[in-house]
Amino acid sequence: MHAALELLGLLPLLLLSYLEALARLLLPSRPKSVQGETVLVTGAGHGLGRATALEFAQRCCCLVLWDVNQHGIEETAAECKRLGATVHTFVVDCSKREEIYRAAEKDHQIEQTFAVNILAHFWTTKAFLPTMMKNNHGHIVTVSSAAGHMPASFMLSYWLFVISFSSSKFAAVGFHKALTQELSALGKDGIKTTCLCPIFINTGFVKNPKMRLMPILEPDMVAKKLLEGILINQKMIFVPSSLNIFLFMEKILPERALAALNKLQAIQFDKVVGYRNKE
Amino acid sequence: MHAALELLGLLPLLLLSYLEALARLLLPSRPKSVQGETVLVTGAGHGLGRATALEFAQRCCCLVLWDVNQHGIEETAAECKRLGATVHTFVVDCSKREEIYRAAEKDHQIEQTFAVNILAHFWTTKAFLPTMMKNNHGHIVTVSSAAGHMPASFMLSYWLFVISFSSSKFAAVGFHKALTQELSALGKDGIKTTCLCPIFINTGFVKNPKMRLMPILEPDMVAKKLLEGILINQKMIFVPSSLNIFLFMEKILPERALAALNKLQAIQFDKVVGYRNKE
Repeated sequence: MHAALELLGLLPLLLLSYLEALARLLLPSRPKSVQGETVLVTGAGHGLGRATALEFAQRCCCLVLWDVNQHGIEETAAECKRLGATVHTFVVDCSKREEIYRAAEKDHQIEQTFAVNILAHFWTTKAFLPTMMKNNHGHIVTVSSAAGHMPASFMLSYWLFVISFSSSKFAAVGFHKALTQELSALGKDGIKTTCLCPIFINTGFVKNPKMRLMPILEPDMVAKKLLEGILINQKMIFVPSSLNIFLFMEKILPERALAALNKLQAIQFDKVVGYRNKE
Repeated sequence: MHAALELLGLLPLLLLSYLEALARLLLPSRPKSVQGETVLVTGAGHGLGRATALEFAQRCCCLVLWDVNQHGIEETAAECKRLGATVHTFVVDCSKREEIYRAAEKDHQIEQTFAVNILAHFWTTKAFLPTMMKNNHGHIVTVSSAAGHMPASFMLSYWLFVISFSSSKFAAVGFHKALTQELSALGKDGIKTTCLCPIFINTGFVKNPKMRLMPILEPDMVAKKLLEGILINQKMIFVPSSLNIFLFMEKILPERALAALNKLQAIQFDKVVGYRNKE
């Protein structure tokens, strides 16, 4: 009964929240400055990680680049330096928790870490979040995928790959949502979160992906969208933004219609690099 | 252009799908029989796993029970036998892939496996799905949680636990959705899938959970709802079913209102068993 009254008491707040949401929709947010911030980018040796590092380098950040591939991060570092950024590189296998901790300890500059790009996201966050919390300052970026909201299908000979890929991308969305909620509950409003959900990016991981209703993305373009979103503290970034429509349709369409739409979309690719096929 | 025309061509199907969905809503499905089916239940030594095993035992199934705790499955097995079921038990640590494969090889009866309850769900599915596919017969049950759709919050000193818990539960939902879609794409309509998403269950894992707007569930009651759902091939089971309303509200409420609602819900618990606290 008491709880029911309190629920009623939420009504004015509900109205206020809708007005606030409307105002945000109408008045574009002013991008924040990241000049001088320390930015950790994991997986910075190639693809989206590299493109993201270059975007931050253009904004005069102090970059910390991690990747398992030394040659890759050195190339990225050279390009970032050419753009005027300070750069530290570490060879880190982000699938190994101990390596993450070792690298985190080595670099005291990371204490002010602004953005964490993802791979072994749980452990990088565990390593850096306590300091971020102490300073109530930072921004954690989780890279998921459109498949983290709606599983991609029709990659017939890759059902095992699709299932584990979707699981991990759903997990990344859950990670982001739980982290966002916990930070809000803890009153740490200085730490922002962003989740990036693009469709296929042409990074060489999946060979020659094709879809009929949507384009295949290039890493540079996705990194640009990511930066735009980070700078206005956008929580969920879909690339392309028309993904919103597909995800809404997934909520309202009956199964049979969704299956037909999936068939029409006809996702195809030649192979997944490093994946030991089928059954 | 061609794709746009094909999209238009989907309209009659869309209408048909809605009519079909409406018919399903109005005409209750007839439960299927599971008598004589082989049912594998992982984590059968306690809590929801045990309660689920007992439900199947009452329906004259041939049960295969897995758990890391020998004493636990022996107790469950004894109760199942009393109910008239044939029971095989294996001590399996479902967090270890090799143990899953070893147990799967040992028991040839599992070839006709009907339901797989979850822990190390990816590997149990990988072990059994090929045979299920060959027979185009089976039912795979994924146990997730309400937290797999909407992260629970306000467990302040447990932020790390909450984040990893939510990630894994989101992953389970993604697993179920991707699996369902792949099976449909492969035309394996004889293999059904069900995802169970309950709120807190009183299993002793989380000590003394409390919520203001919802009850704490008992394993028996959740297992009953699970069986009801499995027998009519329900894809997603929320327990209690009022969870549907909360999840719908999560889609339409602005952030600030959701945060207030979370605060009102006031999830609390004493401790998480086996979790080495805080930082």
